[in-house]
Amino acid sequence: MALRIGVVGTGVMGAAHADTLTREVGGAEVSVVTDIDLDRARATADRCGARVAEDAQALIHSDDVDAVLVVSHDSTHADLVIESIAAGKPVLCEKPLALTVEDCRRVVDAEKHAGRRLVSVGFSRRFDEATVRLRESVRSGAVGVPLLIHAAHRNVSTYPVGGSASSVHSSAIHEIDQIPWLLDSPIVEVSWHAPRSTALLPDRQDPQLILLRTADGVLSTVEVFVNATYGYEIRCEVVGERGTVSLAQPALVTTSHELARVQEIDADFRARFADAYRRELAAWVTSIRSGTYHPDLADAVDGLRASIAAHRIVEAIDLPGTTLDVAPGAADA
Amino acid sequence: MALRIGVVGTGVMGAAHADTLTREVGGAEVSVVTDIDLDRARATADRCGARVAEDAQALIHSDDVDAVLVVSHDSTHADLVIESIAAGKPVLCEKPLALTVEDCRRVVDAEKHAGRRLVSVGFSRRFDEATVRLRESVRSGAVGVPLLIHAAHRNVSTYPVGGSASSVHSSAIHEIDQIPWLLDSPIVEVSWHAPRSTALLPDRQDPQLILLRTADGVLSTVEVFVNATYGYEIRCEVVGERGTVSLAQPALVTTSHELARVQEIDADFRARFADAYRRELAAWVTSIRSGTYHPDLADAVDGLRASIAAHRIVEAIDLPGTTLDVAPGAADA
Amino acid sequence: MALRIGVVGTGVMGAAHADTLTREVGGAEVSVVTDIDLDRARATADRCGARVAEDAQALIHSDDVDAVLVVSHDSTHADLVIESIAAGKPVLCEKPLALTVEDCRRVVDAEKHAGRRLVSVGFSRRFDEATVRLRESVRSGAVGVPLLIHAAHRNVSTYPVGGSASSVHSSAIHEIDQIPWLLDSPIVEVSWHAPRSTALLPDRQDPQLILLRTADGVLSTVEVFVNATYGYEIRCEVVGERGTVSLAQPALVTTSHELARVQEIDADFRARFADAYRRELAAWVTSIRSGTYHPDLADAVDGLRASIAAHRIVEAIDLPGTTLDVAPGAADA
Amino acid sequence: MALRIGVVGTGVMGAAHADTLTREVGGAEVSVVTDIDLDRARATADRCGARVAEDAQALIHSDDVDAVLVVSHDSTHADLVIESIAAGKPVLCEKPLALTVEDCRRVVDAEKHAGRRLVSVGFSRRFDEATVRLRESVRSGAVGVPLLIHAAHRNVSTYPVGGSASSVHSSAIHEIDQIPWLLDSPIVEVSWHAPRSTALLPDRQDPQLILLRTADGVLSTVEVFVNATYGYEIRCEVVGERGTVSLAQPALVTTSHELARVQEIDADFRARFADAYRRELAAWVTSIRSGTYHPDLADAVDGLRASIAAHRIVEAIDLPGTTLDVAPGAADA
Repeated sequence: MALRIGVVGTGVMGAAHADTLTREVGGAEVSVVTDIDLDRARATADRCGARVAEDAQALIHSDDVDAVLVVSHDSTHADLVIESIAAGKPVLCEKPLALTVEDCRRVVDAEKHAGRRLVSVGFSRRFDEATVRLRESVRSGAVGVPLLIHAAHRNVSTYPVGGSASSVHSSAIHEIDQIPWLLDSPIVEVSWHAPRSTALLPDRQDPQLILLRTADGVLSTVEVFVNATYGYEIRCEVVGERGTVSLAQPALVTTSHELARVQEIDADFRARFADAYRRELAAWVTSIRSGTYHPDLADAVDGLRASIAAHRIVEAIDLPGTTLDVAPGAADA
Repeated sequence: MALRIGVVGTGVMGAAHADTLTREVGGAEVSVVTDIDLDRARATADRCGARVAEDAQALIHSDDVDAVLVVSHDSTHADLVIESIAAGKPVLCEKPLALTVEDCRRVVDAEKHAGRRLVSVGFSRRFDEATVRLRESVRSGAVGVPLLIHAAHRNVSTYPVGGSASSVHSSAIHEIDQIPWLLDSPIVEVSWHAPRSTALLPDRQDPQLILLRTADGVLSTVEVFVNATYGYEIRCEVVGERGTVSLAQPALVTTSHELARVQEIDADFRARFADAYRRELAAWVTSIRSGTYHPDLADAVDGLRASIAAHRIVEAIDLPGTTLDVAPGAADA
Repeated sequence: MALRIGVVGTGVMGAAHADTLTREVGGAEVSVVTDIDLDRARATADRCGARVAEDAQALIHSDDVDAVLVVSHDSTHADLVIESIAAGKPVLCEKPLALTVEDCRRVVDAEKHAGRRLVSVGFSRRFDEATVRLRESVRSGAVGVPLLIHAAHRNVSTYPVGGSASSVHSSAIHEIDQIPWLLDSPIVEVSWHAPRSTALLPDRQDPQLILLRTADGVLSTVEVFVNATYGYEIRCEVVGERGTVSLAQPALVTTSHELARVQEIDADFRARFADAYRRELAAWVTSIRSGTYHPDLADAVDGLRASIAAHRIVEAIDLPGTTLDVAPGAADA
Repeated sequence: MALRIGVVGTGVMGAAHADTLTREVGGAEVSVVTDIDLDRARATADRCGARVAEDAQALIHSDDVDAVLVVSHDSTHADLVIESIAAGKPVLCEKPLALTVEDCRRVVDAEKHAGRRLVSVGFSRRFDEATVRLRESVRSGAVGVPLLIHAAHRNVSTYPVGGSASSVHSSAIHEIDQIPWLLDSPIVEVSWHAPRSTALLPDRQDPQLILLRTADGVLSTVEVFVNATYGYEIRCEVVGERGTVSLAQPALVTTSHELARVQEIDADFRARFADAYRRELAAWVTSIRSGTYHPDLADAVDGLRASIAAHRIVEAIDLPGTTLDVAPGAADA
């Protein structure tokens, strides 16, 4: 029997996830969808052969929903995940797990109370083939002990609201999760630095430079540039004692014309990470069906941990150049 | 309802296709499998939740098989496809469609007699994202009118039997299909040339250089090197009046160590084209379910056309450097 | 004392060579220049601190000329080189050594009669750092025994006169010299093939595809495309039993903007090979001063050998697709 | 008449400079050399056709020396440059101009007193073709207003003495000069950060991460890793409002074998910057001969400015993570 998935939220990302589950993931089907805009929900339902539930409550508790995918507005994540836990259903929540550290902690507590793993968080980089290879390469020792990481996260443009904190919560959050996962070492210090700011995005400092230190001593430079205009690019280089390894930039064809050798750059994350989303959703479905979670599928504690570090960086925005510590074990207890 | 697929042949390729259908293609399930080695069939059946049929006949005519995937030995292709047509079931046959031009023609005739499209041929390059982008780029006019193509097809190694003809039928066949598809123009002339031959593959000329001319006048150089040892690489550059466009070589990460900047090269076609197989199988499933065939899914006439050109090239092996024509319209009649 | 060089011909190439000798080669000075256009000669003379001779005769026999650089019209090469030999002066002649095989042979005979090496030919590729590294790599065995070469020679545009033969004599001549030098094996067979021809250069077949076989059995595909419009590119890949090695395309910076990653392509050979010309001229000067010729500096027999093969290819233009042999030892006797 | 150059110091770098002047720079000759090791001086003298002076004093005041090249130990730079100024002779001093800010200032004052430009400093990056192109690209506006720079300076290994300050004075000094030159804006703030340190170089923190802010607001991250072991690499990416531009890594050939695509990485700065040294020396010679200094040839004030910033960074080593200002106009007065 196929796993019957209910999808809450059918905006751009939710609709894409529903389509991916329907077309590119075996052993699963989208059975129910809902959205605050029911017409939008209906369009996705039609494409996927699903029905529309009147609201998230109804969907979560519906008999023909085995597992819940939460892709609604960030502010609703925590409550929907907790509701799913209450219903005893596995739930995959798009990042971030919640808007506040407290809400993340509520989710962790609810799951602990339930007594078994139900929550997964959509840190999709962990399923990007190149990023996985980068991690394998680091672990293989090919470049020796890691010492330093240079990362950059560049978007073409962003919603012109949210201010500087928004770049941390919505964009840098991926690196905040990814770097500890890459190194197997938690973040212990952060600082925030302001380069010259683009004139093209008035509501915030852009780009931002964040320094992260993990418990192993590795220092990471993370550039977050959400209105980079030129393209969507994710870079990551790990510098080790005996070499460096970095993500290759994706390219399908090379065109030479007019005295130039040209490769296209992706316009957004969906083009760049479509395959990672597919693998992540497949890993989630397989985890539920097999009863054994994929080791790279982020759990609630991962979501909490990223939230704690992100909020500390946001505090640092008011103290440019100052190093703040991140309490070790803050996500444990 | 999911499309129930019967898979004939569970060797390396058949097993991989069955797994892909099960895990990565929505709307389809592998319901029955068979193989001349029933133990091998059972292993695949267990992985995919399918049952084993005692032979291909039984599978094709089984009530719980809606469509047939033929991945058995090349020599069995034609008869199994014709049997599927007789059963009125859609069938996807791995390339080549048949070992002889006559057998290809028998398939074309059988389908014509059936009065509707049932046959598809596994020319998977047409679903490789980079190759698709190459074709789009040529069609967009970005490099002007195409004049010349340079292609190379290199395998790490091959089965040391089959002789020089085998390199044409098993490897070059992809380029023989792909180049006319890329240019929308059929092959009209071929010639065959022998570079110095590797000492590492005694049974045949290797590499081979094939020149193909299409009806539009474009000349293509096709290097086929089946025991290249160093890696699996597929190259293709289209040279036009105003520029050139070529396949970028895939790379996930770049490692720098020991005075060298290094990117891994795939070891075989499965690593390189896993995504193309997935897309091809998905396109086939969607074509059947929707009743409208994907325009890039090769049909029986495409299979016949490639077979005619391949056999002409094999004739040219005995006449190195001599240009042979390929009768235009030979695949029509 | 600096070697005093007389330069015959101060067109684009001659002026460039005179400047290079003056500014970038130690131990040499341009003492005298001449040209059929004496005003043009004067401009170069002023830049280089040289005087103008009224004609080539006067220059060659002048007391303040120790060595002669011939960069005049191709049709004058043979006579000027022979005159220099007669004057007992070392002479470097831009390629081609002469327009006919007979004239090349006259030069070889004149030098033989003189009893010592005086003639060098400007096959500058032999001094291109990347091409040298390519050759070293082949010789090191890194890719095993060479089997096949793919070369391409593309110019942005050319003088719209000369016809198809001109592409061979002026452009392909570099590959005709380079490939035997790379492999240490002479050309023994040639054939000529016509791809679809660009509409942008009416006077000739363009591009052309030339196949060369060297005595070691290696087959080389040489694309010559003199009106490629998009840029000046020289490609060469040597395919061996255990790997391939190819020229990397030069690039100084990579610019990413407007959804594209871009590297500039050179507009002409001077940008691409400025460094090779400098090294070649330096090697020539050092050879004369030290009395020992640099092993990569082409001599008159190399010039004759290239001329024989080039003329055979030009014969093949009238016999497309036909393989013609090149008499082994034709350049010896 | 050739410019007669006296070379003080014939260690690895001095000998290389003498050879370059002799072989690859027109209009100049090395007339006199000296060294604390006179045997070593003699070897260079023999190669260059020069004579040996007994000491630097004698060389500087010698009648057959028109200009002085100082390539001796860093601790001797200031006095030798001041002596050359006293002798009224143009002098090119390898970086750094002096070991202390005070000594740099003494040089600036001595030249000011002499009343004309005599001093140049060997900041050779300004003559690296790729770096020049990077600067042109930034100035052209191709990537918009610059906001952020990522630079890395990696050596295979270094002398295991000198401590952390030595990485700043000997290696980072290039970026300290280059970044203000690239942006046309002086450094106004610095901070110093310690990544995890390699176990392979016990005497210092390695790598180091330096943040520089220039007066235009641009923030630069500079990684200095002097014992990177894997190769010599210089990276620089300028991130602007509308795109990014970065140095392409040099490569001559690409070799594919054993499932890997490989390009060599330079082992040291001489391989990487041989051409830049040649251009720098040629620019210096031409500047003296023509009486007009090349605009990119660093002068004494540039040397002082770099020294001020470098010393401020060294102060920051004891205050990791703390931002220190660099007094604007400190180099003027």
